[in-house]
Amino acid sequence: MKPREPQLEDILLLHQGGKTRMVSRVELKTVEQLRQIYTPGVAEISRIIENDPDRYYDYTSAGETVAVVTNGTAVLGLGDVGVRAAMPVMEGKSVVLIDMVDVAAVPILVDTRDADTLVQTVTTFAPTFGAILLEDIAAPLCFEVESRLKETLDVPVFHDDQHGTAVVVLAALISALKISGKRAADLRVVMNGAGAAGSAVARFLLSYGAGDVVLCDRTGAIYEGRREHMNPAKEQIARETNAEHEQGPLAQVMRGKDVFIGVSAGGLVSKDMVRSMAPEPIVFAMANPTPEIWPHEAMEAGALVAEDGRNINNALGFPGIFRGTLDARASRINEEMKIAASTALARQAPEGELVPDFMDRRVHRAVADAVAEAARQSGVARR
Amino acid sequence: MKPREPQLEDILLLHQGGKTRMVSRVELKTVEQLRQIYTPGVAEISRIIENDPDRYYDYTSAGETVAVVTNGTAVLGLGDVGVRAAMPVMEGKSVVLIDMVDVAAVPILVDTRDADTLVQTVTTFAPTFGAILLEDIAAPLCFEVESRLKETLDVPVFHDDQHGTAVVVLAALISALKISGKRAADLRVVMNGAGAAGSAVARFLLSYGAGDVVLCDRTGAIYEGRREHMNPAKEQIARETNAEHEQGPLAQVMRGKDVFIGVSAGGLVSKDMVRSMAPEPIVFAMANPTPEIWPHEAMEAGALVAEDGRNINNALGFPGIFRGTLDARASRINEEMKIAASTALARQAPEGELVPDFMDRRVHRAVADAVAEAARQSGVARR
Repeated sequence: MKPREPQLEDILLLHQGGKTRMVSRVELKTVEQLRQIYTPGVAEISRIIENDPDRYYDYTSAGETVAVVTNGTAVLGLGDVGVRAAMPVMEGKSVVLIDMVDVAAVPILVDTRDADTLVQTVTTFAPTFGAILLEDIAAPLCFEVESRLKETLDVPVFHDDQHGTAVVVLAALISALKISGKRAADLRVVMNGAGAAGSAVARFLLSYGAGDVVLCDRTGAIYEGRREHMNPAKEQIARETNAEHEQGPLAQVMRGKDVFIGVSAGGLVSKDMVRSMAPEPIVFAMANPTPEIWPHEAMEAGALVAEDGRNINNALGFPGIFRGTLDARASRINEEMKIAASTALARQAPEGELVPDFMDRRVHRAVADAVAEAARQSGVARR
Repeated sequence: MKPREPQLEDILLLHQGGKTRMVSRVELKTVEQLRQIYTPGVAEISRIIENDPDRYYDYTSAGETVAVVTNGTAVLGLGDVGVRAAMPVMEGKSVVLIDMVDVAAVPILVDTRDADTLVQTVTTFAPTFGAILLEDIAAPLCFEVESRLKETLDVPVFHDDQHGTAVVVLAALISALKISGKRAADLRVVMNGAGAAGSAVARFLLSYGAGDVVLCDRTGAIYEGRREHMNPAKEQIARETNAEHEQGPLAQVMRGKDVFIGVSAGGLVSKDMVRSMAPEPIVFAMANPTPEIWPHEAMEAGALVAEDGRNINNALGFPGIFRGTLDARASRINEEMKIAASTALARQAPEGELVPDFMDRRVHRAVADAVAEAARQSGVARR
């Protein structure tokens, strides 16, 4: 059954006064309780942490709390709406973390478009939190900010638009490979869209062992040595992808490929383009709200598996990833943990489906357990 | 009845896992709810705020949320313990705001001792919150940081160690004046301790209309033109206080004064020093944990009213002040609002007491109403 479209009046009511709220976990009814919670009693706890910083997570909320951080420059399909208009989305993301996996998520707006200011701000408040979820920050700023924060912070940093998307796409691809009987190492993948998600998906597929990935943007294939419409991020990804230096527009690059993944814009792929791919191709057309090609059209053109972004839901990844990361008190979210998340998601998918049901909390629990185990195996867990 | 001293084992248990937690205000059980709370439904709310920024507080939690910000450099009686050891205190303060006045308070650690970094960090995340409570930041850094933030931010900023203390001391003084029958304008006040609290109390008493205030530090009276142990903050306060340019050590300055207020260190005031004051003086000896002189000693030496810091509890002020500020959606916390808070507190004090019972939620409600009304009268309210 197709879910009922959300009605504006219901939505307005639901969001009134915000969707998240800080509460107290302790009772405050008597002066004795006040003197335990606050001064003078709290001084004992401060002294314990001062003398043994490892106790910080035992006696504060920090180890269970994730900052959901945005600068409002790439919000959903809306684009650069500014921090205040991004707040309802950050609260929504926080609700998902709170309700699905019991992670206390705190939306934090950072009102800047400058990399140095963003990095300095997050670095300065980072000790408040057990992990940092970066969200809806436009490329290429998001690449620089994430990589600098990962280098300097001792808490995990994860840009969901990049890696959350990559984890879910890989999960869907693992499922599709099971259906097609193909091996990852033999796959030749073409992707369209070189924004935050595109580059991260390309890198992650290669990290998982995909044969080759060619990334296209509006100018066509991105290759080492291309001169038009390049930037440092694209130059970097050109060195990592497209081993055969393919050139030309998307339609040309798609010929003979096994997999098409779109994170670009609606309607860019025709049936003929799908027909030009290798037999029984896999098509993930995830542009939002209109896909690069509708799944039924791709199927008509011979695709073995075709999905749009509604089914390959990026929100499937981050709840379990963050729950598992906090469970293991991991110092970072590494490739092993992300691949464990994808594998767990694929394993949870019902027969004939690529990914499992987002609303099933057991799915997120299974992802969390796989991620925590991978953190321990790869030596980044602290418990 | 004297409250039972907090026991360490009770305290450890109480603080385990932290005292605050972010929760969701909405239900998330079905895909329909997910599509209302998160994408695609939330985009409607983002668009509304993008088109009309005034709706920001209507559809997010920001207007009900206060950041409790510290850099951990002047924590309770403990001093410079660092941000992590300060976290239990910030959570305690947040619990007070949450439980006493239903303000959602979020602890935020800012790990820096540099004014520029601190100002930039708070400025960058400020849109997340309806008001900023600065806490336990050492002098003189706190003066510069607060004054710069007040200038640039369009949300209220309030350094509690300064102004919260000042509000409660003035409340106690208003009550003491009722007992003594003296008028504020006739008062000659001597204060000891020129840290964050001392200067703010001195300024606030003058702002209320006290005759004169002489502020002393370890070197004695602070006067315009003093050369030893000065800094820009002390030079500023020297220009505003001590109209008669009194000089000399505390013992000398106390002679003939009507009021002594101590925010310095234990045992610095003797009975003889109290005897040298004007007849029936008022003595607030608030050094923590040992007062400058014990109240019973001050009474024996002729004080009409003598209290230590346990009774003049600084936590009496900020809950009602922040509740009232958010109620009025005030753009700042001005002198009128602070004086309204002091007056309301004095009015709530039971017969024979200087201040009311902290645990009585009606007290904080009365302060909040007085503060909101003062915000409206003084033109800084937005509702």
